[in-house]
Order: sequence, then C-alpha cells, then structure tokens
Amino acid sequence: MDIKLLFDFFETELEKFRKENSKNQPLELYVPISYILQLGGKKLRPLLVLMACELVDGKKEEAIPAALAIEVFHNFTLMHDDIMDNAPIRRGKATVHEQWNNNIAILSGDAMLVKAYQELFKLNPTIQQKVLEIFSKTALEVCEGQQLDMNFETLHNVSIPMYINMIGLKTAVLLGASLQIGALVGGANYEDAQALYDFGKNIGIAFQLQDDILDVYGNEENFGKKKGGDIIANKKTYLILKTLEIADRYSKEELLTWLGHPTKKEDETEKVTAVTKILDFYSIRELAKKEMDFYYQKGLSAIENLPCAQQKKQTLLDFASQLMVREI
Amino acid sequence: MDIKLLFDFFETELEKFRKENSKNQPLELYVPISYILQLGGKKLRPLLVLMACELVDGKKEEAIPAALAIEVFHNFTLMHDDIMDNAPIRRGKATVHEQWNNNIAILSGDAMLVKAYQELFKLNPTIQQKVLEIFSKTALEVCEGQQLDMNFETLHNVSIPMYINMIGLKTAVLLGASLQIGALVGGANYEDAQALYDFGKNIGIAFQLQDDILDVYGNEENFGKKKGGDIIANKKTYLILKTLEIADRYSKEELLTWLGHPTKKEDETEKVTAVTKILDFYSIRELAKKEMDFYYQKGLSAIENLPCAQQKKQTLLDFASQLMVREI
Repeated sequence: MDIKLLFDFFETELEKFRKENSKNQPLELYVPISYILQLGGKKLRPLLVLMACELVDGKKEEAIPAALAIEVFHNFTLMHDDIMDNAPIRRGKATVHEQWNNNIAILSGDAMLVKAYQELFKLNPTIQQKVLEIFSKTALEVCEGQQLDMNFETLHNVSIPMYINMIGLKTAVLLGASLQIGALVGGANYEDAQALYDFGKNIGIAFQLQDDILDVYGNEENFGKKKGGDIIANKKTYLILKTLEIADRYSKEELLTWLGHPTKKEDETEKVTAVTKILDFYSIRELAKKEMDFYYQKGLSAIENLPCAQQKKQTLLDFASQLMVREI
Repeated sequence: MDIKLLFDFFETELEKFRKENSKNQPLELYVPISYILQLGGKKLRPLLVLMACELVDGKKEEAIPAALAIEVFHNFTLMHDDIMDNAPIRRGKATVHEQWNNNIAILSGDAMLVKAYQELFKLNPTIQQKVLEIFSKTALEVCEGQQLDMNFETLHNVSIPMYINMIGLKTAVLLGASLQIGALVGGANYEDAQALYDFGKNIGIAFQLQDDILDVYGNEENFGKKKGGDIIANKKTYLILKTLEIADRYSKEELLTWLGHPTKKEDETEKVTAVTKILDFYSIRELAKKEMDFYYQKGLSAIENLPCAQQKKQTLLDFASQLMVREI
C-alpha cells in the first residue's frame, strides 16, 4: 500500500468530480462546491477510506464513490461551520461565505450533502444499505458535535468527559466511519470494520488533543498556526478545561479572568504568556499528553487482532503515527 | 380514498416522528426540528405521496417513510429559505432563526436533510434505490430553484420561460416527485409513476401562477395574505414579467420605477394601486389565468390514460381542483 499513490489516485477522481460538477447550472450554486474542493488539504478522510479498503484486500476503484462522498460531506461541514464560526479564511483562501455570501454558502452546502449521498448510491448494492446507515448516523453525530461546540462557548461547567464527547462527535467519528466504510466496501466483515472504526475514532480524539497541545506548546513553523491562537480566542480546549478542573481557586479565577473577555491585539502576547504560565504550574502539558497517549494506545489496541497482512497494517499504523509525529 | 382520513393518518405518524426526535441530544439541535414540524400547514406533499400510493392499490402504511421523508425535507428547505429570505414569520409563528438564531437554523436544517434520508432507508429494498435517486435529483433541483429565485432579484432580463423554469424547480418538482415516489412505493410501473410526476409538476406550476395572480387579484380573506404583498416587496412575479414583456416603453419604465426601490410604509397603497393599474391596462390577469390554465390542463392530460379505478383518480383530480378553486 503506497499512500502517495492512493493520494494521487484520489486527486484524479476528485478532479473528475469537480469538472463534472462545475458544468451544472446555476453556476452560483455549483461553482462554490468546486471552489472549496480545490482548496487543498491532506485528504485524510478519503485516504482512510481507500487504505481500509486495500487493507482488507478490496479494490480501491470500488471505494472511490465512498471516498468522494466522505470528502464532499466533510467539505460541506466546513462550508457551513465557517458561516457559523464567522471564519474569513480557510486554507489560506477566502471562505465561501466571504468569497460569495452566506446564502450561497448555505445553499451550496445543502447541495453538497445531497451530492455526497448521490455518490454513495453508486456503491455495490450488497453493501450500500449498511454504508448509508453508517454515513447518516455519522452525519448526524457531526452535527451534534458542532452544536455541542457552539453550546460550550457560553456554558460554564464543561467537564473533561463532555469535552471528549464533543470532539469525538465533531471530528473523530468521521475518521472512524471513513475506515469502517472503506473496509466494508473492501469486503470486510462487520466486526473487523468495527475494529477499524474504533481505531479511527480513538486516533481522531488523540489527534484533536494533540491539536490543543500544539496550539500552546507547538513549534510555530511546524504547526503552521499562530501560537496561542486558542487562548487569544478564549477557546475552552482540553488544556483550559483540565486546568479549571484541578487548579486552586486563585489560579482558576485568574484563568477565568484572562479568558472572560475578548483579546485586544496589543494584549495578545501578554495574555498567552500569562495563561501558559498557569497551565505550566499545573503541568497541563504532561497531563494532556497522557490523555492523548491514552486514546492513541486505545486506538492501536482496537486493531491489534485484525486479521490482515502485517505489512498492510503497518502502513496504516505508520500513517497514524505520521499524524502524531509533530513534536510536543 | 378519503383525504381527511389520510391527513389524520399522516398526522399521527408525524407526531410519532416528532416525539422520537425530540428526545435526542443536544436539544438545541433537535428541538427546532420538532418546532417547525408542528407549525401546521396543509401537508400537501405527504398527502400526495399517500394518495399516489393508494391510487395504484398500494398500502398507505408502506408509504409512510416516504411521506415523512418528503415532509421533513420540505420543512428543511423552509428552515434554510427563511434564513436566506430574512423571514421573521412562518405560518403565524416565529421562524427558527428568529426563535433561536441563524446558526441553529443552519445546523438543524442540515440534520433534517439527513433525517429525511434515514426515513427513506426504511422503504422496501426493491424500490428504495429508485426512490433515493428521484429524491436526490429533486432535492438538487429545489436548491437550484432557490438559487435562481435569489439570482432573479438582481437580474434585469428575466424571461417568462426562465421564470416558469424557476418555479418549476423551486416548487413544482417536489409535488411531482411526491406523487411519483408514492406511486412507486405502491407498486406502480415507472411509466405510470412518471405520468403522476408530470401531473404533479404541471399542477404545481399552475398553483404557483395562481399564487402570483391571487397576490394582486385575490380576495384578501380567502387568500390569507396581505393584498399586493409581492408588489410591495418588488417581487418579479409572472404578472410583472409578462407586463415587462408586452408593455410599451412608457409603461415599462413606469413599472420599473415603481419596483426599483424599497416601499415606504405610507406609500404601500398608492404603489399597489398604481402597479395594478398598469397590469390591468395590459389585461395581465387574463393572460396569467390563461398561462395557469395551460399548465393545469397539461397536468390533467398527463394522467388521462393512467390505468386505475376512475373513482380513485377522481379523488386526486378533486384534490387538485380544490387547490385551484380560489376565485380569480
């Protein structure tokens, strides 16, 4: 299994999809779909679909509709999330609602969700029903995760289990479902496909926790985002929630004061430094890393007994470990 | 076939759907779905599903998932359209984005589209694939219709065929698809189901043209909307577009001047009177009625040769004619 080859294979198919799509009328509805699909990105989810399919000795060609459906679905959620988060930039380019307007981003997103389903209808009928069920269940969960994330912005008592549940729904279940669907299309039995789902979901949670850690402790160059961006945005990440859980009253109040109001441009550095100092005092970096490792290991153990060629499994493991290599 | 009985039958099933749905978490995502589904309305689309099913001697119980899917889908489009149109009121109650906010209306709507698909997965597998294809094609067309409607707001040269195409996509195809899907679930062959689609689509266009006429010439009490609302909102209805097509330069300029800027509250009556006078001069009421009758007759002739009990067909015809009885 060659990841680069799978990536190129998928890119070609995605390009075909984009070309066909961009011919449709009215252009105002369909051009934004092509636009968001060419913004780049790691293509993580469709790669997981294809890898899982090959892992169980399926043919990657048969998994293409599923890989496309999941990539189109993922970008639909990005298009709508960007409206909700008021985000002007996505992968260095204007978001759809910035480039056009909110109405177009709502409606093009809606059309993308339908298009994702249409891709799934091309799958082999024997497995289609099961895939449609998993896909729909996952789609609802992603909506639930996004809603919980929005709820948490104004909620005071977000516990660690609540947070893990939220990132599980918002991010991790789709990684799990990508593997599960790819495996089913490739001919896996339900049990093996479920093992891959568990692997993907737990690695996904670990990956999100890593993101939280890197925001504060990452190497800015490797991470590619402004350091402390979550702190500046007052986001309740794992690091913050864990501190609020274990800190004494004084530190807790100090932290809440820092995060209790919007950050002025000129105060950013001071705020990031001060908050980081509180986190450091409670060794939050180590605690977060421990939590991250817990989910990573949980993911690995889910596929320990998966009956497949060790070499193929190793490619998947290497891929997962590449996602986690960034120094923390 | 007893329409009242079908209506009550559907209401019971919709209530079950609402109850199950409203138990889900997070409430912020699922309560708006229950909310919009109990705002009332004629339940036109699910009734068409059930009627078509019975028309071809199918069992109405088997068509329930399709009827629910189409009602949920229709309300999803209303929820998102209301955001786009900035509409504060729907059926006398606050719209979802007014009652909660835009983000919740976007996300609950997204979840509704997934829920609509989930209902369809309960259909008999032998017909499910075909229904999913029709449903998805129609869903995209409804998005296209909404986009065209938004485009027309700022477009100067909207022709009558463009307008008919737009209302066809935005409104009529879903009426056609409701009948087509109901018939397929009931065991109809593709040809008969297509005839019912053509009937529904053309009656739908006639119904929308009637709406345009009633806005200006309707009896306010029967119609239940403020007279001249479309004129006040500068909407390019059939009446306006037809006038622009046939009027002389002077009348055309006068009409465009009236519709070229937002209406002040105190000028509403004067504007409606003045615009109506221009329409009257060109006998637009009669021309619009002729166009409406054309599509109505086209609809009727589509099912002329449909092989089914005359009595059942008559119920469908009566139902269609009830939709059109309002004096114009």
